[in-house]
Amino acid sequence: MNKSRMEALTDGIVAIAATIMVLEIHAPDNFTFDSLRAQVPAAIAYLISFLLVMLSWYNYHMMFARAKRVDLRVYLANTFWLLVLTGIPFATSWVGEYPTHWQTELTYMIITALWTIMYSVTEFCLVLSNPDLDEKINQESVVTVIIRYSILLMAIIVLPFWPPICLTSTFVLMIISVRRNFKDEKQQS
Amino acid sequence: MNKSRMEALTDGIVAIAATIMVLEIHAPDNFTFDSLRAQVPAAIAYLISFLLVMLSWYNYHMMFARAKRVDLRVYLANTFWLLVLTGIPFATSWVGEYPTHWQTELTYMIITALWTIMYSVTEFCLVLSNPDLDEKINQESVVTVIIRYSILLMAIIVLPFWPPICLTSTFVLMIISVRRNFKDEKQQS
Amino acid sequence: MNKSRMEALTDGIVAIAATIMVLEIHAPDNFTFDSLRAQVPAAIAYLISFLLVMLSWYNYHMMFARAKRVDLRVYLANTFWLLVLTGIPFATSWVGEYPTHWQTELTYMIITALWTIMYSVTEFCLVLSNPDLDEKINQESVVTVIIRYSILLMAIIVLPFWPPICLTSTFVLMIISVRRNFKDEKQQS
Amino acid sequence: MNKSRMEALTDGIVAIAATIMVLEIHAPDNFTFDSLRAQVPAAIAYLISFLLVMLSWYNYHMMFARAKRVDLRVYLANTFWLLVLTGIPFATSWVGEYPTHWQTELTYMIITALWTIMYSVTEFCLVLSNPDLDEKINQESVVTVIIRYSILLMAIIVLPFWPPICLTSTFVLMIISVRRNFKDEKQQS
Repeated sequence: MNKSRMEALTDGIVAIAATIMVLEIHAPDNFTFDSLRAQVPAAIAYLISFLLVMLSWYNYHMMFARAKRVDLRVYLANTFWLLVLTGIPFATSWVGEYPTHWQTELTYMIITALWTIMYSVTEFCLVLSNPDLDEKINQESVVTVIIRYSILLMAIIVLPFWPPICLTSTFVLMIISVRRNFKDEKQQS
Repeated sequence: MNKSRMEALTDGIVAIAATIMVLEIHAPDNFTFDSLRAQVPAAIAYLISFLLVMLSWYNYHMMFARAKRVDLRVYLANTFWLLVLTGIPFATSWVGEYPTHWQTELTYMIITALWTIMYSVTEFCLVLSNPDLDEKINQESVVTVIIRYSILLMAIIVLPFWPPICLTSTFVLMIISVRRNFKDEKQQS
Repeated sequence: MNKSRMEALTDGIVAIAATIMVLEIHAPDNFTFDSLRAQVPAAIAYLISFLLVMLSWYNYHMMFARAKRVDLRVYLANTFWLLVLTGIPFATSWVGEYPTHWQTELTYMIITALWTIMYSVTEFCLVLSNPDLDEKINQESVVTVIIRYSILLMAIIVLPFWPPICLTSTFVLMIISVRRNFKDEKQQS
Repeated sequence: MNKSRMEALTDGIVAIAATIMVLEIHAPDNFTFDSLRAQVPAAIAYLISFLLVMLSWYNYHMMFARAKRVDLRVYLANTFWLLVLTGIPFATSWVGEYPTHWQTELTYMIITALWTIMYSVTEFCLVLSNPDLDEKINQESVVTVIIRYSILLMAIIVLPFWPPICLTSTFVLMIISVRRNFKDEKQQS
């Protein structure tokens, strides 16, 4: 299939998913700064989700830039990646309204985790269709993987005592991911 | 006319139509998981519609990939295909709210059927403008066509007794269509 | 400036403006077909506006396809064309809710007329920046221009007695415009 | 990274951010022109914000057109530029509802100022990654910079007495910026 058209459709959906989240931050019904304060958790949730979508897209587009061939299997995996992505505005809106409850925080974490899994599935399908790609896609070091899973484990333990740990750990995992991207970029040049 | 600009506009509208449907799944007014349960039918309707749009787009873009020439007639057919597509968010939102009533289920089915018809109209116009395309566009086998119409017929019979048959049969027809796409892809390579 | 990037941004805004109008056609608060009836005027207004946007875009993209050079003046004219375009969802939503009042119908007509004027302004700027373009852009025949203005005049006369004349005449003008496009296409080939 | 794909994603987000603002201008709950009057401040705020986004995009795309290389640092700066951009619909909606209060006007001004700062940060990152770009990006003359800061200073002084000064000065700064763009264009040709 036409790779660049699939990328264009994907980019369109990513752009919309990233931007419609901001529609949930309504202008307050009052002109005072006090009324703005009620929107702070929603704004923080939006900030984290927007950065998450943009930084995941960076890795996603890098992965596709290396692939030559895109087939139906890859397209289906990409479709499910986009489907889970469109769940992020919902999770962001809910966690932004009830940021101190474990139910909303856990939902947010499950959806972002599901999104990461769909990312790996897409990667797997892409390697199947481009056998020469196998070694080129950067493997995470064992240390990074351990750190990543430790943070997730810690988040689950801390969750009952301090629910905002989920949004916080998403943010920390994002910083780690960006650091690794910078390292990868330096190695390649 | 400029084929790639028409495709870009089309992809933009498809991306928006697929994504705005998710705006109908509002964050519940409560932090409990119980309150999420009320959104399950809307989520299922969204899931089916999102996959329907993405998988139809796959076939649609394949059809256009084979065509060289795009004229006003094709553009008009494409416009009506897009017009019916923008009815899907409406039908999805309605059926997601009243999934057990035949009125909403039937409306959903009529709009998706109308969309399939507009697809065929566009295909017809595309063949008229690209006479050499005739044999290249894959014909469905007679068996597939019979299965397809049997499912539609069954859905109409079952409808008064179990309305969700419409969403269910849309999903089944989608699976059949994807299976066929996989077969077509294998044949070509 | 970069012509193709300007076109891509323009197409994005056109795609969004054409599609967000459908958000105004809400799923009824009831599952009966009776409740659908209340949405019929909104659906008709949406239908006319969607076709209007798509058919105007056709002419707009044809005009730009002929131009080689795009400068700040053209970009500004294009920006105002887009600005008026984003007024169409508002006018459509208002006229769809009160289709039998001259105030909403007149507003709709003024905004679409303003949009046509912005189209001509953009055309004028494009010819200024591409002097060799002058004769290539198809001039309307005198007869068409007379018919067009007669319809507008008639609409203004009939408006106090039958307000829906505005939406109706927009539709008729659209048909005339498409007919002319078909003729132009035939002449060129 | 792939420059044109980053530009496409950016253009998508810009198109959406510019267009969703219009969703805040709701069709009035009445068919009279009197009811339209309540929407005038929102319409003015929308007009200024739409032009601001479109004219900033013009400069932004010019800046990127000159750059050859785009790396993660530039992408991050671009992401924050987009993040602040998505705050403009919120600020526009708030200032449009309470245009005569200094709180909403100041918020609008802070967000647009932050956006200008993110523009400079992106420019800085772009020069770091494209060392040969340094002299090519047009420096503002000292006079323009002084005028620009005088207007901002005046706006802050006048703010307690006449809050709409913020929207007004945004508009004036925009006109100055367009004038400069026309001069730059003339110099280059």
